[in-house]
Amino acid sequence: MADQHAQSGEDKRPTGIPVLRWEEPPEGPVLVLLDQTRLPAEEVELVCTDAPVLVEAIRSLAVRGAPVLGIAGAYGVALAAARGFDVDDAATALAGARPTAVNLSVGVRRAQAAYHTALAAGGGAEEAAGAALAAARQLHREDAEASARMAGHGLALLDELLPGGGHRVLTHCNTGALVSGGEGTAFAVALAAHRQGRLRRLWVDETRPLLQGARLTAYEAARNDMAYTLLTDNAAGSLFAAGEVDAVLIGADRIAADGSVANKVGSYPLAVLARYHHVPFIVVAPVTTVDADTPDGAAIEVEQRPGFEVTEVTAPQVPVAGAGGGIPVAPLGTQAYNPAFDVTPPELVTAIVTEEGVVSPVTGEALAELCARSRQVTIS
Amino acid sequence: MADQHAQSGEDKRPTGIPVLRWEEPPEGPVLVLLDQTRLPAEEVELVCTDAPVLVEAIRSLAVRGAPVLGIAGAYGVALAAARGFDVDDAATALAGARPTAVNLSVGVRRAQAAYHTALAAGGGAEEAAGAALAAARQLHREDAEASARMAGHGLALLDELLPGGGHRVLTHCNTGALVSGGEGTAFAVALAAHRQGRLRRLWVDETRPLLQGARLTAYEAARNDMAYTLLTDNAAGSLFAAGEVDAVLIGADRIAADGSVANKVGSYPLAVLARYHHVPFIVVAPVTTVDADTPDGAAIEVEQRPGFEVTEVTAPQVPVAGAGGGIPVAPLGTQAYNPAFDVTPPELVTAIVTEEGVVSPVTGEALAELCARSRQVTIS
Repeated sequence: MADQHAQSGEDKRPTGIPVLRWEEPPEGPVLVLLDQTRLPAEEVELVCTDAPVLVEAIRSLAVRGAPVLGIAGAYGVALAAARGFDVDDAATALAGARPTAVNLSVGVRRAQAAYHTALAAGGGAEEAAGAALAAARQLHREDAEASARMAGHGLALLDELLPGGGHRVLTHCNTGALVSGGEGTAFAVALAAHRQGRLRRLWVDETRPLLQGARLTAYEAARNDMAYTLLTDNAAGSLFAAGEVDAVLIGADRIAADGSVANKVGSYPLAVLARYHHVPFIVVAPVTTVDADTPDGAAIEVEQRPGFEVTEVTAPQVPVAGAGGGIPVAPLGTQAYNPAFDVTPPELVTAIVTEEGVVSPVTGEALAELCARSRQVTIS
Repeated sequence: MADQHAQSGEDKRPTGIPVLRWEEPPEGPVLVLLDQTRLPAEEVELVCTDAPVLVEAIRSLAVRGAPVLGIAGAYGVALAAARGFDVDDAATALAGARPTAVNLSVGVRRAQAAYHTALAAGGGAEEAAGAALAAARQLHREDAEASARMAGHGLALLDELLPGGGHRVLTHCNTGALVSGGEGTAFAVALAAHRQGRLRRLWVDETRPLLQGARLTAYEAARNDMAYTLLTDNAAGSLFAAGEVDAVLIGADRIAADGSVANKVGSYPLAVLARYHHVPFIVVAPVTTVDADTPDGAAIEVEQRPGFEVTEVTAPQVPVAGAGGGIPVAPLGTQAYNPAFDVTPPELVTAIVTEEGVVSPVTGEALAELCARSRQVTIS
């Protein structure tokens, strides 16, 4: 069951945005999420007491973004274990809550493996639950560290590609602290540039249909006092044509073995525009986003989301009317094509920035080498 | 002053959509407009009794779309004349209501010229007002005829470029009967293909920020029983990548002498995508859209619209909250970049379809020749 605490009055939160945290009140452990569907109007927390609530939160995008989905999934397994539910059932449900995000199932499997390893070693249920929680916490910590390292590598790359400084960066969707155990992926690079006084402008795509750019990236940019400007996704072309974009920085939900990048729908058109205008198109994502089991872009399963996200206008304060809880803007009965992601082929990606370093040019070989290096680091 | 008649109950209108009409009730002549900001939820008419009301209707996009703006502007001059207002003041205000649409000032000047010609010929004010009205009606009739001819030329071009038939056409913004004295420009071509059984799918870009695609094109497609699917503007890339788009058909607000096309923001990214995927990008517009006084794309003044169109969600039924009458979706104080149009250079345009024929490849010379031919036709 979900419970909600609305935070009212003056905002006293620090700049760092606590996107999720594990708590252990007397009633039993819970996973507390910032409900991202209510931002920026309200900061409301969702308290998950079992895995099905978390599955629903993932599906409804209350928590979203590749890296944090992995962390949430791992905590979800720990939650099921701590509450005495069937851990494997919970893991299956959690891993399947969003099909495209590889980090989700990676995080889930990691906590699940820790649980079973502890059981196999003769530990009791409580000890196994503790192992699952430790695995989730470890993933959370690693992600924060990875975020800081990506920011460093990304800023160095930006400075190298754009020696003039005063970067004007276009970004899409939301890739900051709200999707991360740390400060995010692409957004963390822009934030690092901002802190060094080298970010002239952050252009924020609103990112239809769910407006993660307008609602979430603008919220994070405002909290960090960055110089940012919002635009409709289709206005990016005018910015490129006017020479107002020095680089595109986006995240990734899944990177195939050949370097094809699945990310929020609208990323691929930006890649084509960037190529046409000779602007670097940079993907920032942790190594866990690379899925060696997906050979190429064609093999990436793209989630198709409900049409009402397009045919209806929704905002937290909009009175419920249509099937999706919003107000219909298109004629009733209108069909919509609503893929959650698109796939950018490696030849359009200037560089992939990970916590282990930068891959550029993007080839399957270079990516495999980076991943092998990363595994060595993890094992050692 | 504006008055509104809401039409309720069952829809008994014919398929043809009366976007504007001149009426002469006992209280004096009026121009009646279908308020396009209320579609598709409600069919509400705006009754304009003087030019300032019409100027406001043009600014608020209650009436919009290049060809019909010219007709509305001409009727606006006729209205000022018939009501005894200063015709030149009204003409100046009307012509300046939207800066980018060349048809608006062309239509205004035509009725204004007819008025002054009649006065100069010794006619009284009433006779001059009659001449302005006759000019507006003539423009209205010509536009309907031009629309039919564009549809014919455009369909012939589609059939030539895509001999396989079963066209899957992507369109942006709204270019049908709502913007025309007839059935429109780009939409009229798709409608002609539909009537011949050769339209397999009309892909409708929702067209942020004002959603003319979702609200108006989907409305027109539904009324005409066309097979259509709505999408967010940023999902067009996925359609191209999947090979689901055979041609792009768009209108134009202004075409410079070199063939640069100013059209609704989002057109240029489609042109770049179409080029990248070797898909024809076809502009359909009457010859009056060509502005010989604008040498090239750089000389086109692009209207910058208020940021609240991007930072707030609006729909007719959304309760008023923000500065723009909508609900804020971005943090308060968020700046937005909101150009109404973008400019597509001639090298990205496969063909320009006009009522006088097709220009392809698009060059300044070919366009000038077409316009000269058109003037001969008009003069003879």
